Parts: sequence; C-alpha cells; structure tokens
Amino acid sequence: MQLTRFTDLGLRVLMYLTRQVGSDSVTNAEIAEQFQVSHNHLIKVAHKLGKLGWVETQRGRHGGLRLAGDPRQLRLGDVLRALEGAAPLVDCIQQPCVLRHGCLLKLALDDGLEVFFAHMNTYTLDDVCKGRTATTLLSLHRSASAGRA
Amino acid sequence: MQLTRFTDLGLRVLMYLTRQVGSDSVTNAEIAEQFQVSHNHLIKVAHKLGKLGWVETQRGRHGGLRLAGDPRQLRLGDVLRALEGAAPLVDCIQQPCVLRHGCLLKLALDDGLEVFFAHMNTYTLDDVCKGRTATTLLSLHRSASAGRA
Repeated sequence: MQLTRFTDLGLRVLMYLTRQVGSDSVTNAEIAEQFQVSHNHLIKVAHKLGKLGWVETQRGRHGGLRLAGDPRQLRLGDVLRALEGAAPLVDCIQQPCVLRHGCLLKLALDDGLEVFFAHMNTYTLDDVCKGRTATTLLSLHRSASAGRA
Repeated sequence: MQLTRFTDLGLRVLMYLTRQVGSDSVTNAEIAEQFQVSHNHLIKVAHKLGKLGWVETQRGRHGGLRLAGDPRQLRLGDVLRALEGAAPLVDCIQQPCVLRHGCLLKLALDDGLEVFFAHMNTYTLDDVCKGRTATTLLSLHRSASAGRA
C-alpha cells in the first residue's frame, strides 16, 4: 500500500515550491535535477498540478513553476485524493474477483480510505514544510541558485 | 494507492474460510480455482495466514485450510497491518529522496496510515462476510462441494 510515484513526486514539487526563495519561477529542469527524476516525468506532474490550479506555469526564457495559492490553505487530503485519482484500495475489475458485486470488504475499504483522506486534511502543505524539512528545502533552493549564478 | 495482491488475496482467503460449510478443510487448490489465482501464490498466502495463527493447515489426503479463530474477533485493521507489513506510504529509501531526513510529510503520512488502520479495526472479518457477500461465498462453497461429489 504505497502512493503512486506520480503522487509522491507531486507532493515533493509542491513542497519545493512552498519554500521558494524570491519571486523567480523555478524550472522543471531544476526540480527534476533536485529530486533526481526524469524531466519527462516531472513535466507530466507539473502539468497536472497546473490543471488543478495549484501551480502557475510560465513559458519563455524565464518560465517555470510557481505555487499559485497559499500553502496554508492547501490541505493534504485534497492533494492526495486529486493526485491518486478515484482508484479504490482493491482492484476488483482489472483482477476480477467473484465477490465483487456488493462486496462488503470493498465498502469497508472505501470507508477507511475516506477516513484517511479526512485525517490528512488536518494537515496543510505549509504544515509539512516547516522545521528540518524547511531547512532542507531552503538549502536545495540555495544550491540551485548558486548553480545559476 | 492500492493494497498489494498478497494482502488482497489474503483477505479473500479469510472471507472464503469464514463462510465455510461443514467441518471439512478447504484445499489450497479449491481456493485458487475459486479466485482464479495461481496455486503457488495461494500457497504463499496460506502459509503466511498460518504463521499469523489465523488459519489451521492440515496435511494429508483430507488436508487443507480452516479458520483458526472466531471471525468476530479478527479485526480488519490488524489483518491489513500484518499482511501489508511495515511498508510506509512513501518509499524514501529505494527511491531516495533528498528530503528524507526528518521529513514532516513522511510523519504526516505515517500518522494517516495509523488512523486508517485504527478505523479498519472497527470492522471484523465477520462484518464483511454478511448479506450479499455471504450469499456469494455460500454459493461458491456449494459449487465446490458439488464439484467434489
């Protein structure tokens, strides 16, 4: 039971942008390098975050990404739900199960997933970008900035 | 974010044994056929359920599986936790993340997972083997019994 790599990376991108220093946008290439993921994968994640309205994407020479809203307003349960999509915890269709019609286990797991999302909504994006995590994010931004200079 | 196939199958085996008719054990082969999974995969799952003390395994000609305890006492959160193992929702090690030391996102996700397990513990194995699910399980047992006759 793990988040998809897509969701995992989406969360890291949002965290990186939350502790952005200054007003310059951050390029996809910079984030891909910081998290050592493929540029193509990063672009897909950034596109999705843009469609969800959580990041602004800017084109051109100084183009890149920037957080669109207030990270104190963006709740982690909503982020997880949107990035994970509507997939249930068990796949009764692709791997067909004879119990699937009206299965009470499926309903119980759906219920548990809702409780999980609701609990994750007690955290905001800002909450998980504090303390030591903030320190790490800021040092990443400083090293990227030094590389550009 | 999905349960592993191992956990998924483990749950189905427990459900199948919960609505077992009569006192005969159920063979691994029968369960593998009912759920259309490989016999080898089923054997691994059955072995784990045996180690956890939830099923009794009997060898010999009439050997097979049988639920070891009362399904009204076996809580789904405990089952999920044991079958999923200690894996967190994000893998910060195998896919190394620069934020992993003291990452607050990881702590928040661990917390959410605990809340999920605790909520799933409000359900027992018996709870999810009722109603239409019980009807389906009983009809599977009847068809297997007719096949043996």
